[in-house]
Amino acid sequence: MRMYDIIAKKRDGQELSKEEIAYVVNGFTKEEIPDYQMSAFLMSVYFRGMTKEETLNFTMSMANSGDCLDLSKIQGVKCDKHSTGGVGDKVSLILGPMVAACNIPVAKMSGRGLGHTGGTIDKLESIPGFQTTMSQERFIDQVNHIGIALVGQTAHLAPADKKIYALRDVTATVESMPLIASSIMSKKLAAGADTIVLDVKCGNGAFMKNKEDACALAKEMVQIGNQAGRKTIAVISDMNEPLGYGVGNGIEVMEACHVLQGKGEKRLTKLCVILGAYMLLGTGLVKSVDEGMEKMTESIESGKAFEKFKQFIVAQGGEFSYVENSSKLVSSTYCDEIFADETGYIKEIMAYDVGIGAMILGAGRETKESSLDYSAGFWLKKKTGDYVKKGECIGICYYNEPYKNNAPSAKEKFKNAFIYQETPVQPVKLIKDVIE
Amino acid sequence: MRMYDIIAKKRDGQELSKEEIAYVVNGFTKEEIPDYQMSAFLMSVYFRGMTKEETLNFTMSMANSGDCLDLSKIQGVKCDKHSTGGVGDKVSLILGPMVAACNIPVAKMSGRGLGHTGGTIDKLESIPGFQTTMSQERFIDQVNHIGIALVGQTAHLAPADKKIYALRDVTATVESMPLIASSIMSKKLAAGADTIVLDVKCGNGAFMKNKEDACALAKEMVQIGNQAGRKTIAVISDMNEPLGYGVGNGIEVMEACHVLQGKGEKRLTKLCVILGAYMLLGTGLVKSVDEGMEKMTESIESGKAFEKFKQFIVAQGGEFSYVENSSKLVSSTYCDEIFADETGYIKEIMAYDVGIGAMILGAGRETKESSLDYSAGFWLKKKTGDYVKKGECIGICYYNEPYKNNAPSAKEKFKNAFIYQETPVQPVKLIKDVIE
Repeated sequence: MRMYDIIAKKRDGQELSKEEIAYVVNGFTKEEIPDYQMSAFLMSVYFRGMTKEETLNFTMSMANSGDCLDLSKIQGVKCDKHSTGGVGDKVSLILGPMVAACNIPVAKMSGRGLGHTGGTIDKLESIPGFQTTMSQERFIDQVNHIGIALVGQTAHLAPADKKIYALRDVTATVESMPLIASSIMSKKLAAGADTIVLDVKCGNGAFMKNKEDACALAKEMVQIGNQAGRKTIAVISDMNEPLGYGVGNGIEVMEACHVLQGKGEKRLTKLCVILGAYMLLGTGLVKSVDEGMEKMTESIESGKAFEKFKQFIVAQGGEFSYVENSSKLVSSTYCDEIFADETGYIKEIMAYDVGIGAMILGAGRETKESSLDYSAGFWLKKKTGDYVKKGECIGICYYNEPYKNNAPSAKEKFKNAFIYQETPVQPVKLIKDVIE
Repeated sequence: MRMYDIIAKKRDGQELSKEEIAYVVNGFTKEEIPDYQMSAFLMSVYFRGMTKEETLNFTMSMANSGDCLDLSKIQGVKCDKHSTGGVGDKVSLILGPMVAACNIPVAKMSGRGLGHTGGTIDKLESIPGFQTTMSQERFIDQVNHIGIALVGQTAHLAPADKKIYALRDVTATVESMPLIASSIMSKKLAAGADTIVLDVKCGNGAFMKNKEDACALAKEMVQIGNQAGRKTIAVISDMNEPLGYGVGNGIEVMEACHVLQGKGEKRLTKLCVILGAYMLLGTGLVKSVDEGMEKMTESIESGKAFEKFKQFIVAQGGEFSYVENSSKLVSSTYCDEIFADETGYIKEIMAYDVGIGAMILGAGRETKESSLDYSAGFWLKKKTGDYVKKGECIGICYYNEPYKNNAPSAKEKFKNAFIYQETPVQPVKLIKDVIE
């Protein structure tokens, strides 16, 4: 087999065999296939796409390129959840404990943030003492013991995907449906869960700007998951404003506590309840989404979910006082109010710009090497549909000394992210579609 | 400017500016743009093509990436000829002296062969003593003195093209019309001639298998040449059998002598006369192709063209006896007859296979590093349209000791290259089209 012939075959629109795809993925991972051939191949995939069969084989080759977690020592049907990335998306922090409180084991690996989107692992690290790495043995033990563990992705999880993604990132080959789908699914499959619920974000702050693209991506991923023998469900949810009120790290953990205590923002709470319901449905614990939603609401109202959260944080070394009194997580030197310079109804809030604003305050990473300021970020005082008078406070900006010079431009980005209209705003549907 | 953005722009089908194209070509040549970005860019060009403007700018950037020959010290309108590559194509050897005999200065740079096609420089080097390198000063002096000089391409001629071609060769991005056209034309423009006649080969032994593709390539090249201010004409000629009788190096020089002595194979002689006529037309020496053809025929019949050839060979250090008695160039240890194993009319002769056969006898290069056996090759005893009886001799195979083990498979390739039919064969047109 020669890489040249495989590039030419894909370029000419012919279907690649399982063996050819394995040759590409393994050869590139072992550095036997040079970057310049791989990038020509990826650009051909951009133009020609991949068949269902090719996408599955590409995903499986990447999933099998490193460690595959063996969760068989955990009792019960293991469920995982993945978000395609949004702004203020703290759902994993909330959903894990909610589901675990219903005795569904949650053994989850999460990533770090980059650019305008945050990462669950970064957010958890805002709690002093919290450990995001542990041995596989301890990981499984913890899940068996308290029903939940959440760690960072190891470098050995789908290393092929990591290497291929880095190349796509610099060769303008990121925006390809089968490549996006296989990249996400390779990690999910390697992470070992039996059931996967995908939260595919759609809107101005998401990778997929419109419903059509979001549904296409969701379908690709659901297909891969189901073909690989994992029950997979995708929920398409709105990302035309930041999710909830908080955008940052510590600030999002604080908001997660609010939701788990039953005092969270409505749409955010609703999204957690719905995604949780599909997780319960996927594991077979409930027979309908409605039954799942009831159970999820009950897990919050009974206090069980928050109890589980505290148990989980302490089990991984986090300081209890920061969960008990979560406002301790938002202890920045500066907290400035931001005021509206228009009067009107909020039509939408450009989540991407809010994310970039938080990034330049130190809450996000511009490059993989950037360090984080855990207490920096934004708190939205107004959301889509609200009526705002010029001069009214629309948000608070939290930051510290090293980022003081960036604060004016971050506040400007935040302010300009708000789009107003004169007439009342029709509510935007939170859930746009569900693909099973 | 960022290479990433330029790749994305081309990928999305937008037109690149002159500055963007210069950035790509110069950045890659200076190794500031990595291979993996360039190959993604080239694959985008493969799929999206290039506009006339882009192709011209790409060509000019490559032409200007190294030395550009200044032929202004040569009196008169300088004319160059280029073939897209065939089997047994010794036209440059014949045409140069023919045109020079009409007082049109020929200052030509030629390439070496690779794979199934030979190179003019390799063929000339089969004459003992012949020098294919000289200073630019001496090169111009020789043209001013005897009207003709022919040297190998220097590494400094369009180095961007050299580097880009090497990358295309391993990333399946060779087969792109604008990339092929700009590659050829960048070298021709840098080589400095005022008029360029292109011999675009078309058929089983050529890069372009059908007339449609050959015409499309011809049009692209003629457009580039004319836009760059050089009078450019393309002749589409048949390559559905090797050109003439000889395929090799020394053997082709011998055949060139035959043509110049007025005893050459008819179609080969005709092609030289026609291409020469267009060269004279391009320089303005004649008013019509017919007038040009008369002059070209006259240059052979008068003996002037052969005289010019001998003068040229001696001027570049070649041993005179090998031109006077050109059969000295075919002095291999072995010369085996090859016999037909069918009876019938020859429908076509797969030139590609004859070329590969000659290559494995040592007459061609499998890789850039291969050395050559100058006396090896084939001599065709039969051509398309001939009637052949089973057992009749169809060709002779010349080879030496080091390639003895390859001889059986070379002869097999030669024999199988002959396609027969029972009924007489309609003559194939030599000139398929002319693009001006």
